[in-house]
Order: sequence, then structure tokens, then C-alpha cells
Amino acid sequence: MKKANKKVNAAIIIIGNEILSGRTQDVNVAYLSNWFNELGVKVEEVRVIPDIESHIVKTINELRKNFKYVFTTGGIGPTHDDITAKSVAKAFKVSYCYNKEAYRILESYYEPGKFNDGRKKMAKMPDKTSLIYNPSSGAPGFIIENVFCLPGVPLILKSMMDGLKNRIFGGKKILSKTISVSTVESEIAKSLLYIQSKFKSIEIGSYPFFRMGKIGVSIVMRSTNKNKIDDCSKKIISFIKKKKIKIINR
Amino acid sequence: MKKANKKVNAAIIIIGNEILSGRTQDVNVAYLSNWFNELGVKVEEVRVIPDIESHIVKTINELRKNFKYVFTTGGIGPTHDDITAKSVAKAFKVSYCYNKEAYRILESYYEPGKFNDGRKKMAKMPDKTSLIYNPSSGAPGFIIENVFCLPGVPLILKSMMDGLKNRIFGGKKILSKTISVSTVESEIAKSLLYIQSKFKSIEIGSYPFFRMGKIGVSIVMRSTNKNKIDDCSKKIISFIKKKKIKIINR
Repeated sequence: MKKANKKVNAAIIIIGNEILSGRTQDVNVAYLSNWFNELGVKVEEVRVIPDIESHIVKTINELRKNFKYVFTTGGIGPTHDDITAKSVAKAFKVSYCYNKEAYRILESYYEPGKFNDGRKKMAKMPDKTSLIYNPSSGAPGFIIENVFCLPGVPLILKSMMDGLKNRIFGGKKILSKTISVSTVESEIAKSLLYIQSKFKSIEIGSYPFFRMGKIGVSIVMRSTNKNKIDDCSKKIISFIKKKKIKIINR
Repeated sequence: MKKANKKVNAAIIIIGNEILSGRTQDVNVAYLSNWFNELGVKVEEVRVIPDIESHIVKTINELRKNFKYVFTTGGIGPTHDDITAKSVAKAFKVSYCYNKEAYRILESYYEPGKFNDGRKKMAKMPDKTSLIYNPSSGAPGFIIENVFCLPGVPLILKSMMDGLKNRIFGGKKILSKTISVSTVESEIAKSLLYIQSKFKSIEIGSYPFFRMGKIGVSIVMRSTNKNKIDDCSKKIISFIKKKKIKIINR
């Protein structure tokens, strides 16, 4: 049996002034990261950049070299501030032109006479891309080499993801386990450091929380190896009990 | 009177595996961006990066050259995965050592005998930083040159921002105005493109929305010049009325 590649990484580029200005709360990063986890792909960097061509070109070219997959969201709509497709064409030094299939999809999506210039613009893409079909609003995204361009509207983006699963060749599924305890981080820091040194292949994170007036810490273990997570979890629970700290959930 | 600098920019670096893994939804970007808007500072890039020293050093060094202000969030707590302070010291090639003032603050914050190693770690910082005081949980953030390091927990971060306002020298306040209309983007794309060409100093964004089963578009104008926003707004409302599109709010 072929062993799954353990290290498959991805970067996400959020293109949009509305995120940088604080007007819109991004929710695509968390959604896409969880989607990638399921496929055994680890998101290792996210960038949020403005709707400026030079900035998009530079970011695409930097990240597509360093990550197996690069997903962009935003900027593929019909208006003047939607410049992702044109910028990606520039990044790849290919022409920006009508994609025949996208043109046909959009032409038949709209009523006769309603396929105006703005809508036609959504069929313009870098040359030789393959399409990401859009079951909710017609306009497709596109793939060029390892760069996948998706819309920014979360509902539309989500509707397009199922069709993408067979385009991603991930590694082992990334598993995680959380133990939430009723303490503050500094009470468990030393023991966690010790456990991390014994379980180097597990990513152990410690996250304080404040919920309904109560404080606590969530200890999160992440790895592709379930047995190791279980072993690590036992060690953590053992020291937590020794310290007489209450376990909230695990 | 000295004219306010129009172009003051900032970058935000979110340091934390929990954001990249999709476990935690970031809310600090939107909060900080709005905070900067008030001070006339435009956030022009955000990066989310993992708790890996080399990655933090590289990102800090790249961004601090290109932006007037760089804010980091996350990684300044007591546990093994909190490596921001050490990494920033490395980026600036200064030593990572106890900050005497931070040490005193933390020593007096905790009850006698409770100032353990984890807590002491929070007083370790790059040499010659100035502190960002923390009214909610004691442990301070720090400033080194144009890099400001804050915690990741939103409630604590927010409590520390007031003390920072006099450390930021921004430009004119960035104003914005939104007109929401009951249409789809492609119906107004051409007119918006024309208006954008007439108002080059205004950043006009177009954002489709779906709320309670209704679709619409929010047209957002951003600029430091209120009169120009008003003029632009009038032009937009005029073409919207001409097209007999319903204005939802403005």
C-alpha cells in the first residue's frame, strides 16, 4: 500500500479591501482550514491583501512556489473591483481571455438579453484554466496549476467545495483532540513543555478561555497519528489529575 | 497647520496554529482594522502564520520594512507554544531577556509564592522594548521600533488598546459610507466602473449580500475626504434611481 504523504501544505489568500478595512468579518479561513484538515492538508499561511493588481501578482507568485495548494477567495465577480482573474493571468504570464466553457455556462444561466458586459466579465479568466463549477450562482471559479480561485461570498464558496475534493491529493487526515481544564496556563506550562518534548510529532497548543465568567484552558493535540494522540492525552490527563485540576471536558 | 500625512499604513500578523487549523475563528483583524481606521491608518496586509520561529522571524523582518506599523497578536503567554517574544528578539537581533519593569509588574500581580516559571516567562522580551500595559490580566505586551506585540485573546487585547492610541501617528481619519441596494452586482457594474473612473481618490467597493432570503449589493465608498464621498454618493444614488433600483439604506 502506498504510504500517504505526511506533509501536504496549503496557503489561503483572501483578496478584498472589505476584510482589511474591518467592514467584513472573514469566515472563509476557518471554513477552508477545516475542509483541508479532512483531506490531510495543513494550511500553513494565510494572507489578506487588497484589491491591487501588483499586490495580488506578487503574493500569488510567492506562495505558489512554496505551497502545494494555493486557494484564493474574492475578486471574481462582475464589478470594477473584481480583479483576481486578470491579476492571476498576469502572475502566470498567460493571456486574460474568455473561457469558452464559462461563457457558455453563463450565457445559458441568464435569460436571453440579460447576459450583459458585467456578466460576460465573469467568463474572462487566465488562458488554459479548468473550471470550478458553481451550483448556486452560475459564475465558475478556476484552477491554474496549483492555484484555485474561489469567490468571497461564503455561501457561494461553500456550495463549490464538494466538486473540488477529487482535485486535492492530501496526506493522512489531521486529527485533533481537546482537553479543557479549569485552570490558568501558567499552572500547567511546565508540565506541557515536558510532554511536548516527549511527543515531538504532536502539535500541542494551549489556549486560555473565558466563558460565562469562568476561566479555563483548552489543551489541543493535533497529529495524523491517533495512537500517539491517545498516549499523549493519557499523559496530560495524568498530570492534570495529579495537580487536582478539574477537567471540564475531554 | 501641518497637513496630516495621507498614507499611513499598517500590517497585522496573527501568530497561532489555532487560527490556521480552523479551530479558532479570528476576530482580532476586524477589531484592529476598525481601530486603525479611527486613527487614519490603513491596514494593507494581514498574515496568519504558525507558531514556528523561522516563520515568525521572516515575516516580521519582511513586513517591518514595508509598513509604518506592524501589529502582532498571539504567542506571548506562558506556555511552550508562546514563542513570539523570543522570535521577535531574533528578528531584531537583540537579546531575549527579562524586562525589569514587566518582571516587577508580574511579581506584584501574583500572590507571594505564585510567581512561577511560566509567569516569569511572560516578563522575557526582546531587549530595550517599551511595554504595552495590560489592565485585565497583568502580562504586558511590548513595542520594539515599529513592531507592536499584543496577546491573542480578544478580550485582553481590547483592554490594552486605549493605552496605545498616543503611540500611533496616523493620517486623516478614513471615512466610509455605504449604500445598500436591491439588485445584483452585474446590473450596476458598468455604472460603478464609470463612477470609479471619475472619483479616483475614492475606493469604491461592491459587495453582494444575501440576508433573510433577500439579495442585494452594498456599495461602499472609502476616503479621507468627506466632501468627495458625498459627491460620489450623490452620483451613485442618481444612477440607482435612474435604473429604478430600490435603495435599501444609505
